[in-house]
Amino acid sequence: MPYTLAEVVRRFGGELKGDPDCPIEGVGPLHAAGAGEITFLTSGKYQGLLQATSAAAVILSPEHTELFGGNRIVTANPYAYFARVADLLHPLEVHEPGRHPSAVVDDEARVASSAWIGPQATVDAGVHVGERVQIGSGCWIGKGCVIGDDVRFYANVSVYPGCRIGARSVVHAGAVIGADGFGFARDADRWLRIPQIGGVTIGADVSIGANTTIDCGTFEDTVIEDGCILDNLIQIAHNVRIGSGTAMAGCSAVAGSTHIGKRCTLAGRVGVSDHLEIGDDVHIAATSLVSHSIKEPGVYSASLPAEEARQWRKNVVRIRQLDSIARRLKKLEQDMANLTKGNEC
Amino acid sequence: MPYTLAEVVRRFGGELKGDPDCPIEGVGPLHAAGAGEITFLTSGKYQGLLQATSAAAVILSPEHTELFGGNRIVTANPYAYFARVADLLHPLEVHEPGRHPSAVVDDEARVASSAWIGPQATVDAGVHVGERVQIGSGCWIGKGCVIGDDVRFYANVSVYPGCRIGARSVVHAGAVIGADGFGFARDADRWLRIPQIGGVTIGADVSIGANTTIDCGTFEDTVIEDGCILDNLIQIAHNVRIGSGTAMAGCSAVAGSTHIGKRCTLAGRVGVSDHLEIGDDVHIAATSLVSHSIKEPGVYSASLPAEEARQWRKNVVRIRQLDSIARRLKKLEQDMANLTKGNEC
Amino acid sequence: MPYTLAEVVRRFGGELKGDPDCPIEGVGPLHAAGAGEITFLTSGKYQGLLQATSAAAVILSPEHTELFGGNRIVTANPYAYFARVADLLHPLEVHEPGRHPSAVVDDEARVASSAWIGPQATVDAGVHVGERVQIGSGCWIGKGCVIGDDVRFYANVSVYPGCRIGARSVVHAGAVIGADGFGFARDADRWLRIPQIGGVTIGADVSIGANTTIDCGTFEDTVIEDGCILDNLIQIAHNVRIGSGTAMAGCSAVAGSTHIGKRCTLAGRVGVSDHLEIGDDVHIAATSLVSHSIKEPGVYSASLPAEEARQWRKNVVRIRQLDSIARRLKKLEQDMANLTKGNEC
Repeated sequence: MPYTLAEVVRRFGGELKGDPDCPIEGVGPLHAAGAGEITFLTSGKYQGLLQATSAAAVILSPEHTELFGGNRIVTANPYAYFARVADLLHPLEVHEPGRHPSAVVDDEARVASSAWIGPQATVDAGVHVGERVQIGSGCWIGKGCVIGDDVRFYANVSVYPGCRIGARSVVHAGAVIGADGFGFARDADRWLRIPQIGGVTIGADVSIGANTTIDCGTFEDTVIEDGCILDNLIQIAHNVRIGSGTAMAGCSAVAGSTHIGKRCTLAGRVGVSDHLEIGDDVHIAATSLVSHSIKEPGVYSASLPAEEARQWRKNVVRIRQLDSIARRLKKLEQDMANLTKGNEC
Repeated sequence: MPYTLAEVVRRFGGELKGDPDCPIEGVGPLHAAGAGEITFLTSGKYQGLLQATSAAAVILSPEHTELFGGNRIVTANPYAYFARVADLLHPLEVHEPGRHPSAVVDDEARVASSAWIGPQATVDAGVHVGERVQIGSGCWIGKGCVIGDDVRFYANVSVYPGCRIGARSVVHAGAVIGADGFGFARDADRWLRIPQIGGVTIGADVSIGANTTIDCGTFEDTVIEDGCILDNLIQIAHNVRIGSGTAMAGCSAVAGSTHIGKRCTLAGRVGVSDHLEIGDDVHIAATSLVSHSIKEPGVYSASLPAEEARQWRKNVVRIRQLDSIARRLKKLEQDMANLTKGNEC
Repeated sequence: MPYTLAEVVRRFGGELKGDPDCPIEGVGPLHAAGAGEITFLTSGKYQGLLQATSAAAVILSPEHTELFGGNRIVTANPYAYFARVADLLHPLEVHEPGRHPSAVVDDEARVASSAWIGPQATVDAGVHVGERVQIGSGCWIGKGCVIGDDVRFYANVSVYPGCRIGARSVVHAGAVIGADGFGFARDADRWLRIPQIGGVTIGADVSIGANTTIDCGTFEDTVIEDGCILDNLIQIAHNVRIGSGTAMAGCSAVAGSTHIGKRCTLAGRVGVSDHLEIGDDVHIAATSLVSHSIKEPGVYSASLPAEEARQWRKNVVRIRQLDSIARRLKKLEQDMANLTKGNEC
């Protein structure tokens, strides 16, 4: 269903320059958007692509408005504006309410009539499924879970008993929420399981990536606050708390009982050790290990970029000699000081 | 169902100080346990929490027994004792025996009458399912697998044909056991698949985390010995053997044909290269790469803790100069030696 | 079904030395292959095992043919030859065509009559399923996917709408193909989802490991070219392109919009940052982070091997002093130069 530029601006604001009746029916990137499609510009460095674009309209910021003569919407945050337009034009599919005949829904589950429960899904006793919830093929929602309105589970998601998921959150395929925390007591040569009796509380507007795992808490809940976004294959251990609006890229992992603040970002493959306190607005570079608590906002890193292997190996050998190198350097400095003093005498 | 402290001590031993009739119906942590709940103390550094606890009873070691005046059980290993009590008070759910009507169980599978096969599960021909086994929603148990007594699969677990899983082992949701090992032969520009005809043998009392993957062996079985505990998102490649009682935290990975000894611990995100021999009682720090065999018990590490990024980047540049730095240092030492000798003359 | 050595050579070529009527019915490794089994030798260093082998026949290269007096097939690439023989003797199981009564197949899906759709699977509207395709238990194939001939999905695979998978590709259990790319726009304190309207195109003869995730593209498709092999627990982000014949070992991750060339290899746990260009024939060592584009073929590394932890910690402290160490070294060099000049005067 196309919208005119005038309709777009009426919904989302911004200043329209050009033809208000121009119909928009899709989105695309600067280099590929064509007739009927709207695109966006976030940086002047794409000026060349902007000149050459075939898009029907461009969303851009006031500072770039003179770079383009065609239809455009001027707004302070073009990328966020684009997100809203794209969501309008490409809304997520919502199934007809109802439950597929192959779904197994316990009689004691409470399911809103507007919800959709897909094929081969299982919804156990005591589950509360909110309005317009979408439960994909093969999902398992364990006993007593509370699923907020408009939550969306893609296929083969597993949610252990007693978890709570806030409104509008999205859980991608294969994610596992509420599996046992990794808690064991050593007893001579054996490991004894510590029952994990907490749950998982996920806030509203959270996104959970494919095959990501979020363990339940030992006594109290593991908590993902509102608006967090977690990519694929992330591991969140028991008793972790992730502050609102924090973003974690793929393959990151947070060990048990660590608390991470609000608006943090973890680039891909970041590890955070257990029992740490990470403050708000902390940003961690890709692949880094965080092994100490961090109070100050800022950017932290232990990223080592790959280089040509022969050269790298030479340097690695030296890392193993570093302590000795440092001691030898100190010795030389002393020798030099003595020598200089001697020469002065 | 509550137990009195006297009943607890009758089952698990230890010395009871205080009221033997005190009823216990749950567990909790020192700071939050309340009436009817038992907790534990493992370190004197939590003495403050101990004084303030509202718990009905505390499990602690002889050296701490005088720190607390309330009901207490004195035992050499309070955490292991607590594990036993918690398991008594919060036992895992065992379903009524039987198979859900939506489960697909091959006529040629042998399923103990005390087992439970949940909704949407598939059990193929020739599978042997032991007593009281619990098979969760959406699991697939491939042809000819042998599942020991009291094994528990949570939802959406996949087990390829011919795997064996020992008694009382637990497999969390989304885990994949027995997928093809990553074996390919290069033939000019193509990769030819090497059929992986081994299976996976998992011992008794093993715990496998959510979305963990354990590949089958090329010719013989990949083996996880008794009592191993594996956290979430772990990768075990073909032909690996993990010795009994070894623990691996989340996101660790062991490459093909590596053997790891007994009672080892791998902290989170550890990688172990292929074809290595790691002895017993070896402990690897978080995020480290093990690229050589290790014979000696001990602690090994290549952990690099993140630091403030600007400072880190300065140091990283220097890592790339390390070989040159080491050579320059040596040159200086020679110069110094010559100079000193010169001065002596 | 056994084959004689003569039949093997008739199919796959090579020079047969020994008894052409020797029956072969299985494969095994040098140290364990027995009567009726064929094995292979790739390196002279296994000469000892070769002498002791009980195998019925050995596949080896011309340079090693004199090392063994028994039945043998001489060929330039013994391992590739072995792959072909093993595949002949241990072919993958192909189910009887048809769909299990518990499978849910939309009336508007087009399914080849030779295909097999297993128990508890879901095939949505508009899906095209090619000849002899095998869809395992609990798989979900979303709307409009196109599945080439002889594609094989093991259990609990999730494929989002609109993905294309080329002929003969194999997707292992728990893999997720086509989940949303991790695209969000920051809007003050909130993250706004960018609709991900691209799909995933997977070429022919691709292998995808268990619990691996491949995200859909933002506007255009994420692409895995022909003949790529991906191990378990790999993350491929949106808009990535992987060139034909590239191999990636377990737990590797490629961030958004990065292009990787042909015939590359990524060892285990490699990370590649976003928006990079990696050329053909680039090889990355285990656990390395690639944070810059690489044009030249070759081997690249940032692998840090673990060492005894006490020693390691000493060296790590020095890494944090490296910039200072380098500056002090330079200062000393200047002092030395001055001193030498002074002495010369």
